[in-house]
Amino acid sequence: MPLSPDQQAEIEELRSQPQQTLRAVSPGMEAHLYHARPVLDHGFVRVVDYMGDDAAITQAARVSYGRGTKSVSNDEGLIRYLMRHWHSTPFEMCEIKLHVKLPVFVARQWIRHRTANVNEYSARYSILDREFYIPEADALAAQSTVNNQGRGAALTGEEAERVLRYLRDDAMRAYDHYEEMISTEGQDGLARELARMNLPANIYTQWYWKVDLHNLLHFLRLRADSHAQYEIRVYADAICEMVKDWVPFAYRAFEDYRMGGATLSAAGLECVRRMLKGEEVTQENSGMSKGEWREFQGLIG
Amino acid sequence: MPLSPDQQAEIEELRSQPQQTLRAVSPGMEAHLYHARPVLDHGFVRVVDYMGDDAAITQAARVSYGRGTKSVSNDEGLIRYLMRHWHSTPFEMCEIKLHVKLPVFVARQWIRHRTANVNEYSARYSILDREFYIPEADALAAQSTVNNQGRGAALTGEEAERVLRYLRDDAMRAYDHYEEMISTEGQDGLARELARMNLPANIYTQWYWKVDLHNLLHFLRLRADSHAQYEIRVYADAICEMVKDWVPFAYRAFEDYRMGGATLSAAGLECVRRMLKGEEVTQENSGMSKGEWREFQGLIG
Amino acid sequence: MPLSPDQQAEIEELRSQPQQTLRAVSPGMEAHLYHARPVLDHGFVRVVDYMGDDAAITQAARVSYGRGTKSVSNDEGLIRYLMRHWHSTPFEMCEIKLHVKLPVFVARQWIRHRTANVNEYSARYSILDREFYIPEADALAAQSTVNNQGRGAALTGEEAERVLRYLRDDAMRAYDHYEEMISTEGQDGLARELARMNLPANIYTQWYWKVDLHNLLHFLRLRADSHAQYEIRVYADAICEMVKDWVPFAYRAFEDYRMGGATLSAAGLECVRRMLKGEEVTQENSGMSKGEWREFQGLIG
Amino acid sequence: MPLSPDQQAEIEELRSQPQQTLRAVSPGMEAHLYHARPVLDHGFVRVVDYMGDDAAITQAARVSYGRGTKSVSNDEGLIRYLMRHWHSTPFEMCEIKLHVKLPVFVARQWIRHRTANVNEYSARYSILDREFYIPEADALAAQSTVNNQGRGAALTGEEAERVLRYLRDDAMRAYDHYEEMISTEGQDGLARELARMNLPANIYTQWYWKVDLHNLLHFLRLRADSHAQYEIRVYADAICEMVKDWVPFAYRAFEDYRMGGATLSAAGLECVRRMLKGEEVTQENSGMSKGEWREFQGLIG
Repeated sequence: MPLSPDQQAEIEELRSQPQQTLRAVSPGMEAHLYHARPVLDHGFVRVVDYMGDDAAITQAARVSYGRGTKSVSNDEGLIRYLMRHWHSTPFEMCEIKLHVKLPVFVARQWIRHRTANVNEYSARYSILDREFYIPEADALAAQSTVNNQGRGAALTGEEAERVLRYLRDDAMRAYDHYEEMISTEGQDGLARELARMNLPANIYTQWYWKVDLHNLLHFLRLRADSHAQYEIRVYADAICEMVKDWVPFAYRAFEDYRMGGATLSAAGLECVRRMLKGEEVTQENSGMSKGEWREFQGLIG
Repeated sequence: MPLSPDQQAEIEELRSQPQQTLRAVSPGMEAHLYHARPVLDHGFVRVVDYMGDDAAITQAARVSYGRGTKSVSNDEGLIRYLMRHWHSTPFEMCEIKLHVKLPVFVARQWIRHRTANVNEYSARYSILDREFYIPEADALAAQSTVNNQGRGAALTGEEAERVLRYLRDDAMRAYDHYEEMISTEGQDGLARELARMNLPANIYTQWYWKVDLHNLLHFLRLRADSHAQYEIRVYADAICEMVKDWVPFAYRAFEDYRMGGATLSAAGLECVRRMLKGEEVTQENSGMSKGEWREFQGLIG
Repeated sequence: MPLSPDQQAEIEELRSQPQQTLRAVSPGMEAHLYHARPVLDHGFVRVVDYMGDDAAITQAARVSYGRGTKSVSNDEGLIRYLMRHWHSTPFEMCEIKLHVKLPVFVARQWIRHRTANVNEYSARYSILDREFYIPEADALAAQSTVNNQGRGAALTGEEAERVLRYLRDDAMRAYDHYEEMISTEGQDGLARELARMNLPANIYTQWYWKVDLHNLLHFLRLRADSHAQYEIRVYADAICEMVKDWVPFAYRAFEDYRMGGATLSAAGLECVRRMLKGEEVTQENSGMSKGEWREFQGLIG
Repeated sequence: MPLSPDQQAEIEELRSQPQQTLRAVSPGMEAHLYHARPVLDHGFVRVVDYMGDDAAITQAARVSYGRGTKSVSNDEGLIRYLMRHWHSTPFEMCEIKLHVKLPVFVARQWIRHRTANVNEYSARYSILDREFYIPEADALAAQSTVNNQGRGAALTGEEAERVLRYLRDDAMRAYDHYEEMISTEGQDGLARELARMNLPANIYTQWYWKVDLHNLLHFLRLRADSHAQYEIRVYADAICEMVKDWVPFAYRAFEDYRMGGATLSAAGLECVRRMLKGEEVTQENSGMSKGEWREFQGLIG
């Protein structure tokens, strides 16, 4: 269970105290505030705060005085134009702040996106909880035989059981020893900044993560993608649901031009043109390597 | 006058429509929203949006679930501790979005602070207004004779008059020619992206500028400083007034530890220690160069 | 003439003093060092320093100990793979430092790319030279009638002459007054930080600009593009020539997958698939707006 | 041992092949190239590449054509001036690329410095080595009783032995299970991206880290400080030795104005002034909290 009853109560008390503001308000996003969305076995994502809405994007694009155009259809048209033509600065005018609880190995991937602000729970200062990510049966996958950094079918039977046993037992033992090492009963107690190094990478940590909409969409494009590791993709998917309600025009444009779109190389573009003229194009006369040709065929279906 | 009656009316309509939100609200900052604060002869700064308040800083510092400590004095104590020890990430959890109208030569200094988001009015796309910064009499200063990048006393008499005449006449003529060149009456009309290059650097531009509190305070430390050029300092001063009302604890800590504080070099620190022991310290036995000694003496009064 | 004889002599002296190094050396780039490549009427780009080469990209991708693979073909294959799949961090491992002389209005566009290091000549501290960009006849273009931020055909006849006369005369007059205002003969002399604001945006400035290869390629994709303003495109084109010699594999991959490639939207991709199956697709049944359809048709030729 | 004989041989072969270059060369830094400096029990830092030297800093500050002033003393004076007055952009004109092998918990602290480029060894793609950080006896410290995020005296006797046994045994067992889980002998083999999560935070990883001199000095000021965790401080100390030889003027200025210097608050500055006038100042009349006063007294010795 991601949140304790105390935490839940504290959050619910905050939910019951709306205040007045003159700022842009996104009704869709207000509904997400103070709701922690569960992810994996002990993790969650919750929106702590946000700045701006769809109209804030067009307002900045026009460097205008008021809230953008009167006409909603114009706002959406402009947002689609901006997305299509890679005008990224207006999307940077929206900001979101998330509170995320996630396994350390996911945090290590996530933090590679540097254009964001982060405050992580400090294991030098505080004691970590006994919470570890243990995959569900269908997420316990074999190494992919075609992709060096991917996974294949789910493990089964004894192999699956042994893996789960190792993951659980090693985590529990490591945590027992962690507690024992930092204990000050009858001993000095190891420094927390050292003891933490005994803990495996499936332990949960948490942080505040603040990012602008442009960089968030870039993160989502990479991490909500089918090539991303499952354990980070579920976080990205959960965030997608929030963004969809926060800035619906921007999110729809993002789906059309980024998530659902594709990039063709110069060679790929040339092949499409030749094929549309009725020419027979094969890998041999395509100007592409075998790998590229395979990817190209996957693309044009 | 910075705002036209139309713009003023549009802004005032928005002021009259408060909405409910579950986000952190800073009452001090709400009072600034939709008020354009005049700066220089045609410029202004106005807050368009903000995220967070003092409590949001401590909340992130504690990666806590609720609104920070119960006790306000604890919140201020923690904020002062964070500021004193250069823990910058909790301050990054607040964000502000400003709409600024400013002369181009000020914009060129401002943009050197790169950790911010910017949307500037496009002179490729749109036509600039006939608005130029012309200094007040007391800002019309001579080159400093001691500081290569500073200014001295105000110019007077004929010299001052001639300078003002040049600034005004050259700006008006340049703008007349700008208009004439882009006009399509009886001619093709020069591209706006070319015509703009005839305009001098005291013409006004405007932008949306979004920045986190940590980077904003860094900007203010440099630009609200007495060594900053007067024409950017007045913008920084205006923003200081807003930040003071937005995050009063953080702003007070900033004044005590950054604006009002000073950095001593290893040699300066050693000299202070020797002087406090009653030793006679001179430039010769201080280990400092003449320039450093002069700055040091200015510091310790 | 971009460089004075003195500057030329200083640079040439440095060219004649090669030194030994154990670092990665790019022979193609060494040939560019200390050659200022002229751009526009008074500008230039010159490489001051660089870090890394093609092998440095693969070395970082593999976090390897030595200089990458033995086989050159493998290096190129890996670089193409990295570019195709948007693995940007290995390209960030190469760095370039340029000295650029450019008109202020070009500098203002350029600086919008924030992930770079910049040192610009200070007009608060120093006196600017009397050098202004005046377009060649064929660059003196009319406002585009179809694109709000583009240009059309070249102006001709009297209109062209008048524009050139305005640009030249206004610049000369502004500079005369600039010199007169800062002069200390028989007067105090206006502060340089104020006097500079009388100068139009076609005056030349210069800076040192340092950027990693990934961000440089992003800059080139936007600025060497046909939609970029001509006056910045010529700088981007000049830099392309250098990059081609510096990291030939990376540059070729960039041409194939970025410059020569294209992004299809979800709707565009779907249309291509339908068309390849022999279906008749029109704007009406394409799911695209008229603007998108026009762009799509331009793409697939 | 940080490097295998093969790696050592590969590096040494590269050392024996100096090439000619026209770029700025730092003789002090050349001596470090291809020498892996051991840190902790299995870690190291080695310079892979660098850009610039002391003269490159002054060259950029002056936006000059050649290599800076003729006079070395002038270069040092300018560098000290730039450091003293927080003019950071010229220091950004130097760049360094390091290859670092370090425990994961150190890497997690390190990566919080975001203004750098990183390529880390991928445990999704590759198999990690059986190498774990086990502290030396004198680094096996108790939790500090005065500082929540610090450490006290070294543990001794049985307690120390038990900690070491836990750290070693848990690491070995976790690695045994890691190997067993990914093995494909007689089973499918768990995906590497999942198996890695069983490994504790004292396992070694490695990365290429590239950063400019300004941001590197900021990193060193925080991480070579006595308040930094010992296990990252030893890396910072090792890098300090390299920087000292790379840019001796800049490093000396850094020691005088940053590392050896101190920041006084407004209240602290006022107290120093009063004390120098002979006034008796106590915590009560200082305007400081007890914590601040204690830090202040530590400072003025």
